[in-house]
Amino acid sequence: MTFSFKLLTQDKNSHARAGIIHTPHGDVPTPVFAPVGTQATVKTLTPNDLQELGATLILSNTYHLYLRPGADLIAEFGGLHHFMQWPGPILTDSGGFQVFSLEGLRKIDEDGVTFRSHIDGSEHRFTPEKVIAIQEKLGADIIMAFDECPPPHDYNYNVEALRRTHRWAERSKAAQTRSDQALYGIVQGGIFADLRAQSAEFLTSLDLPGYCIGGLSVGETKAQMHEMLEVLHPILPHHKPRYLMGVGSPEDLFECVARGVDQFDCVLPTRIARNGAVFTKQGRVNLRNARFAADKNPIELDCQCYTCRTFSLAYLRHLLIAEEILALRLTTLHNLHFMLDTMRRIRQSIFDGAFTNYKNDFLAAYRTVSSRQ
Amino acid sequence: MTFSFKLLTQDKNSHARAGIIHTPHGDVPTPVFAPVGTQATVKTLTPNDLQELGATLILSNTYHLYLRPGADLIAEFGGLHHFMQWPGPILTDSGGFQVFSLEGLRKIDEDGVTFRSHIDGSEHRFTPEKVIAIQEKLGADIIMAFDECPPPHDYNYNVEALRRTHRWAERSKAAQTRSDQALYGIVQGGIFADLRAQSAEFLTSLDLPGYCIGGLSVGETKAQMHEMLEVLHPILPHHKPRYLMGVGSPEDLFECVARGVDQFDCVLPTRIARNGAVFTKQGRVNLRNARFAADKNPIELDCQCYTCRTFSLAYLRHLLIAEEILALRLTTLHNLHFMLDTMRRIRQSIFDGAFTNYKNDFLAAYRTVSSRQ
Repeated sequence: MTFSFKLLTQDKNSHARAGIIHTPHGDVPTPVFAPVGTQATVKTLTPNDLQELGATLILSNTYHLYLRPGADLIAEFGGLHHFMQWPGPILTDSGGFQVFSLEGLRKIDEDGVTFRSHIDGSEHRFTPEKVIAIQEKLGADIIMAFDECPPPHDYNYNVEALRRTHRWAERSKAAQTRSDQALYGIVQGGIFADLRAQSAEFLTSLDLPGYCIGGLSVGETKAQMHEMLEVLHPILPHHKPRYLMGVGSPEDLFECVARGVDQFDCVLPTRIARNGAVFTKQGRVNLRNARFAADKNPIELDCQCYTCRTFSLAYLRHLLIAEEILALRLTTLHNLHFMLDTMRRIRQSIFDGAFTNYKNDFLAAYRTVSSRQ
Repeated sequence: MTFSFKLLTQDKNSHARAGIIHTPHGDVPTPVFAPVGTQATVKTLTPNDLQELGATLILSNTYHLYLRPGADLIAEFGGLHHFMQWPGPILTDSGGFQVFSLEGLRKIDEDGVTFRSHIDGSEHRFTPEKVIAIQEKLGADIIMAFDECPPPHDYNYNVEALRRTHRWAERSKAAQTRSDQALYGIVQGGIFADLRAQSAEFLTSLDLPGYCIGGLSVGETKAQMHEMLEVLHPILPHHKPRYLMGVGSPEDLFECVARGVDQFDCVLPTRIARNGAVFTKQGRVNLRNARFAADKNPIELDCQCYTCRTFSLAYLRHLLIAEEILALRLTTLHNLHFMLDTMRRIRQSIFDGAFTNYKNDFLAAYRTVSSRQ
């Protein structure tokens, strides 16, 4: 089975879409949230844990895996699925975001980027061809064209970077030798509607199996992010999946699904979990708070995750205060369950014609971080 | 069901014994190794993990739980079983070992010990009555008399400490108000055969449901530890369980079962796991070693633990080198499986009259730490 995407229904009151991605390693119902497994592991969890959570797609990072343990080693094991023993669909990013985040450690030219490892300072070079070759060794089901992820507010820089990203997208496509991996192109253009439109049009002309929206959630406002999604919605082909990279929060799922996004990934749920912060339908809560010291309730009364079915807030707080490693796994399980379960409900609500109601109800109850932490 | 112990068989060629302990929370086949859950969690593992490993008894620490989260809080939850959601048998220690380890932070008198918390420096006092009251709040199935754990080589100090430990054992017994907890007395006496014998005789006269052997594995040689066990074997009542506290390594299980020990606990398997060291039938191995970088084999080919059934040495090494939390859980699972499985085999070999052969075969293959690390 090779890659394909089927759009199953569209919401009448928004741009929300429900569909299904077929991949060689299984189906991914969309919209989908992909947990992040940067170093070939979703932090604290086993593949069994992920399957019990109902994860259908996970992301891993080309830059990190290239540096450690190395793409050749993973290829020797038959690819990332075998190396990490995750049998389901995997997506790898292009490495662009990480490489361009290495301020002072990288140099860009027309052909590619020379950079230094954040681990040992050793020098490396990424070109579109190299990044595709690495991703072919890793063997994910969905791979990314090499792109430049520029600061979002500098127009002239974005013009220049976008030209490179487009030439690199063409080269990435030309470099592909495996037919069992779906290559997505990455729309860039900062917070500039004309550049975003131009990027979507150009990449659409390459007829790729899917499209990423990159360079968002990097410092711009939510309103600017939403505006860019609205610009892109009519331009990106409707019968291809749209993947908003590095987003989001629970609120983002609703706001961005409403604007036509099918795919998400974000470290937020797993990262804040390791700081003791968990999602609830009323907003984000930090379990270290003294008010939970003797609380016999679970994080959420009606939550079906292992953590909530088993442990009290008092016990979870005790584990966090005592710096017990188990705490990190239990909070991670809850937060990923929250994201995956919310996304399953979003998808069902789209089929039921109830998405806008669900969105309004959720957002009315969900207080943002600033009011809770 | 209250506590009882039944001795089922004794080995012909050694003092090895097989039996079963009945507790209000289930049966414990002996000899048994109890994983340590110091702060109401066996580090990195859930109760589900422990059940899948076949753990039948776990230990938790009176001193640590008293300080954090506090015995009253745990009592409010109906005791430790409910607080940590471990439904099986639990043992709590007396806190003596921890308190006497607080060099410079504690002061002993006839009535008890005044000490400062290692967490915040606050002052606390343990007496035999207080320690029993705390353990009654924690609600473990097996509890310990308050004892003094002295340096093993100082004869005069051991004489003095032993008198206190015996008076404290009497007071601990008198202080007990719950009938559903089995109070074990703790034999002390350092490395001195006469003191050990005296201690075993005195505590036997108190007719307690079980006996601990304390103050070993604290700096004496293995030969001295074995000698003490040989002194105690004929004195301790045969129809009561004997628990060697804080021991042991895989080799210790064999050597001490052979000398009549029924119960063990030790942090070693879980502690070294978190440093990347794992047990194999050939000895202890550190998974960070570069020779595992591309090794497709599991830690042990015939091991049935989740880690060995699922992951390669190369992947485990990658997780350790990349400082991924998952590594700690996977190595912990393997090491506890190794200990629990070895103990199950030891027990079966006692029934089969094959213990000495199994012991000789195991120890011939198992190289000690110094030759491997």
